[in-house]
Amino acid sequence: MRNLKLTVAYDGTDYHGWQSQPGVPTVQGTLEEILGRILDQPIRVHGSGRTDAGVHAHGQIANFTAEMTMDLDALDRGVNALLPSDIRVLAVEEVRLDFHARKSARSKRYEYHVWTSPVVSPFHTRYVHPVGHQLDVEAVDLATALFIGRHDFTSFSATSAKAEDRVRSVLEARWDRGQDEWVFRIQADGFLQYMVRTIVGTLIEVGRGRIAAGDISAMFEAADRAAAGPSAPAKGLHMVSVEY
Amino acid sequence: MRNLKLTVAYDGTDYHGWQSQPGVPTVQGTLEEILGRILDQPIRVHGSGRTDAGVHAHGQIANFTAEMTMDLDALDRGVNALLPSDIRVLAVEEVRLDFHARKSARSKRYEYHVWTSPVVSPFHTRYVHPVGHQLDVEAVDLATALFIGRHDFTSFSATSAKAEDRVRSVLEARWDRGQDEWVFRIQADGFLQYMVRTIVGTLIEVGRGRIAAGDISAMFEAADRAAAGPSAPAKGLHMVSVEY
Repeated sequence: MRNLKLTVAYDGTDYHGWQSQPGVPTVQGTLEEILGRILDQPIRVHGSGRTDAGVHAHGQIANFTAEMTMDLDALDRGVNALLPSDIRVLAVEEVRLDFHARKSARSKRYEYHVWTSPVVSPFHTRYVHPVGHQLDVEAVDLATALFIGRHDFTSFSATSAKAEDRVRSVLEARWDRGQDEWVFRIQADGFLQYMVRTIVGTLIEVGRGRIAAGDISAMFEAADRAAAGPSAPAKGLHMVSVEY
Repeated sequence: MRNLKLTVAYDGTDYHGWQSQPGVPTVQGTLEEILGRILDQPIRVHGSGRTDAGVHAHGQIANFTAEMTMDLDALDRGVNALLPSDIRVLAVEEVRLDFHARKSARSKRYEYHVWTSPVVSPFHTRYVHPVGHQLDVEAVDLATALFIGRHDFTSFSATSAKAEDRVRSVLEARWDRGQDEWVFRIQADGFLQYMVRTIVGTLIEVGRGRIAAGDISAMFEAADRAAAGPSAPAKGLHMVSVEY
């Protein structure tokens, strides 16, 4: 039995998210079907975490175990030859049998792309959330810093999220600003469903002057999704990497 | 009567090129339909030149004349609100009545994107031609320099191209090289159909060692499409700008 780690990039536009679901295209489902065809056995792929419909990934990590003798380069070429061009396996590595893409993860990094110019480039439209105007830099930076550290993120995650423990540690949260877009970068030891999108949606409201940076602490204390701002749309969200 | 100049960007993936054709989506046809709807009169848009099916544009220039009183900012916003997100009007300017997007053009710039790494990023796959391996830098640069200057480009254009005079002046031709892709930049006083794609297709063959840089002169002299290399695919071609 061998345990293989995959690094996967995908444009999530045309997928109903990572997780396999009957009757709709998903990234996990597509990978499992093609790996199963190449290795001639049913393959179950474990992702580091689900991404929602429309979310993109540059370095999603997944693993699967199989009895196989195939050379890893040949497997990589074969998988990419059969995958649609909006999903690519960037690397295949053999790892110890106790490696699990989700359970072994120590932290993850996400980016969220906000387009601040009035007209969105047709080459970026699938990957950014257009707000169409500048935001208040100072207020956003002040509020962003309040997310760093160990917090109960109940207010900043989907009410339907199943996690019992909603405390997560944010190791980094900052914005890089270009002429047309702002890029939010966040690293945490784990993410709840909609967590990045709700943090960003709240920060955009801060940048528009509709929420004061000082209100963030009260939002954490409320531990109630209704206390925070709206969730920003999926298409601006990019999973960047997983650290082990 | 007013004459309006449009700067237009589009992702050409889903269009049958610039030029209006019955029954299929084209960029010109889409612009004419939406401008006509907003201005409530038939609008004929003149582009600086046609782009073929699947070719992209970052700064295509077009103009149209109309009797209209509408504010140009309002027109720009209205057009972008109705256009699909893969076509954007980046600027609307009023110009002299004798300005014509094609006839007034002095030169144009194109880029061609060649992906040289084995795996194409899903975020670039619509915009690059994947060759999947490195090319011979020195041979390509030597051959590229031979395209600069005034030449008869009959061998490097579509046999079906209708131009009588196939002499064009290439003002600049060079490659910028990154880790994953090579970008060819070319500026000329005009381009024949398939000209950039045939130059690039020929240069790729040079980079693969299948054509010698020294053979380029003989290709020009032959004035025969069959003498040059294959045309590179449309999706790697990007119209960048038009100079007036």
